[in-house]
Amino acid sequence: MFEAPYLLFLGDAPDGLAAKMAQGIYDWRPEAVAGQLRMEGCKADLGVKDLSIQEAVKAGAKTLVIGVVNRGGVISDSWISVLVEALEAGLDIASGLHNLLRDEPALVEAAEKSGRTLHDVRVPSVKYPIASGKKRTGKRCLAVGTDCSVGKMYTAIAMDREMKKRGMKSTFRATGQTGILIEGDGVPLDAVIADFMAGSIEWLTPDNDPDHWDMVEGQGSLFHASYSGVTMALIHGAQPDALILCHEPTREHMRGLPDYTPPSLEQLRDTALPLARVVNPDCKVVAVSVNTQHMDEERALAYLKEVEEKMGIPAVDPFRQGAGRLVEALS
Amino acid sequence: MFEAPYLLFLGDAPDGLAAKMAQGIYDWRPEAVAGQLRMEGCKADLGVKDLSIQEAVKAGAKTLVIGVVNRGGVISDSWISVLVEALEAGLDIASGLHNLLRDEPALVEAAEKSGRTLHDVRVPSVKYPIASGKKRTGKRCLAVGTDCSVGKMYTAIAMDREMKKRGMKSTFRATGQTGILIEGDGVPLDAVIADFMAGSIEWLTPDNDPDHWDMVEGQGSLFHASYSGVTMALIHGAQPDALILCHEPTREHMRGLPDYTPPSLEQLRDTALPLARVVNPDCKVVAVSVNTQHMDEERALAYLKEVEEKMGIPAVDPFRQGAGRLVEALS
Repeated sequence: MFEAPYLLFLGDAPDGLAAKMAQGIYDWRPEAVAGQLRMEGCKADLGVKDLSIQEAVKAGAKTLVIGVVNRGGVISDSWISVLVEALEAGLDIASGLHNLLRDEPALVEAAEKSGRTLHDVRVPSVKYPIASGKKRTGKRCLAVGTDCSVGKMYTAIAMDREMKKRGMKSTFRATGQTGILIEGDGVPLDAVIADFMAGSIEWLTPDNDPDHWDMVEGQGSLFHASYSGVTMALIHGAQPDALILCHEPTREHMRGLPDYTPPSLEQLRDTALPLARVVNPDCKVVAVSVNTQHMDEERALAYLKEVEEKMGIPAVDPFRQGAGRLVEALS
Repeated sequence: MFEAPYLLFLGDAPDGLAAKMAQGIYDWRPEAVAGQLRMEGCKADLGVKDLSIQEAVKAGAKTLVIGVVNRGGVISDSWISVLVEALEAGLDIASGLHNLLRDEPALVEAAEKSGRTLHDVRVPSVKYPIASGKKRTGKRCLAVGTDCSVGKMYTAIAMDREMKKRGMKSTFRATGQTGILIEGDGVPLDAVIADFMAGSIEWLTPDNDPDHWDMVEGQGSLFHASYSGVTMALIHGAQPDALILCHEPTREHMRGLPDYTPPSLEQLRDTALPLARVVNPDCKVVAVSVNTQHMDEERALAYLKEVEEKMGIPAVDPFRQGAGRLVEALS
């Protein structure tokens, strides 16, 4: 979809949190980052080289990636002039912001004049097919969660990186804007039209080598009333061979839904697995990935041990412990 | 969304099948039909009054509804001139065609000049919210199927009509283009953006009287790899109090998916009910609606009896037997 190396644009970020997106890109794909571009007053710093637009172009950068949240949902005039300069200097621009680059006349004009491309990664750029349900070669692993935002993307990408390190064939398949900005490619599933959701995931995970794994980024939860349809389409489009259950054990209610209690890991397993087997009878639940960030080390390790005994499969916090045991659970 | 009475446009339909949409509207809502408009060479006939555009306007018609499939996906010039005349005479136009009225410059211009509206019912006309999952007052019934096209719309609308006849409070809630053309309102769910699917169904089935039933039109199937996400969103958006299982027993594979065998009614029940209970713990599977059109009477009745004994709930073909026992199963 768009090319590395990236110049990560931090704009006038008031703090590090506002540049979380840039941080994620740098954490997961440092080799794709040429440097950072900070405007006056920027309080974020990734600890990589500060580059001007001209320096970035000389260093071989292809795409300026907006890695910062804009204030009040408006792309400010001060940003626009920097972005126009980047286009004129020969960089494409990629953005995951809600307000679109293509809705800014100055950017559209500059992109046309310079022959560069504006990538709004929240908006599908492909006409996806309707899913065929046909079996594809190669293997696929999908993380499903008891809730939204429990570490599904982290799990998939951490496993992908660990597999690459071990010389295994693997591709992280992004389905949300952060993942797409990291990989430079993917499907913004939550913006796809209903009829084409499963088809977009088939498109994203095509035939591959028999020993190749697509590590598919999960979305939503079968138990989340707002987004369960997206999750369902992802399960049937991905035809997973392996499911990883993702969980955040301290959450008291479903994200954004105060009246809903998260399901147990057993409920998630017993709901997701039969649905996955509709499209892949050989699908297995291979491991549990737990986000223990709100537990101290001792409590976290005790909890993981308890889950492992109860579920009979490895239970790991990949942030605390690395993704090695999750990867080993695939074979 | 658009107003009755309708003038049903049959165009130059080569046979009755091409005017199936018009037939459905007339079958289910005869009181909304002012008459039919047939062009030269039209071979379809609903058996209602033939009206010219001027006669239809005099008879009080508000909307010309295109009830015929166009050949080759093109709105022909001969149609356009009739449709322009209708707009100029003061009628709105509603269409479920794939190619949109709004993409025809002559229609757009005539609608603007005359202040009339073009309703493309395949395209959402509302900015739907993200689902909140909040419990709503009133009751909701949803038909779920072992496959697509097994009679879910027929079941919901037949039950709605029967309930109205009995003086019960009920509304048919359309989620597909045929249903929307019949009711004049609804959500074209398969064209809604993923994130807003469940929210569009919450919007469609708002708070209501405690004894009012929304009879929600089902879509797809949890077991259909192409459309299961749409079905899932429908279940969680509708928060059904009652599920009706819909089935076509002679089907050998899932519609459009030659490699997939339809599930059993037990599988459908055991999959759909726990998912519905995520949003409504009181949900029950109350009846089975069977489409026995490919069975003779004797075989159909024997099959229905067998299903009824096996499942322990009423099993009815509403086309053969009426929807009375399905309605009684709600209470």
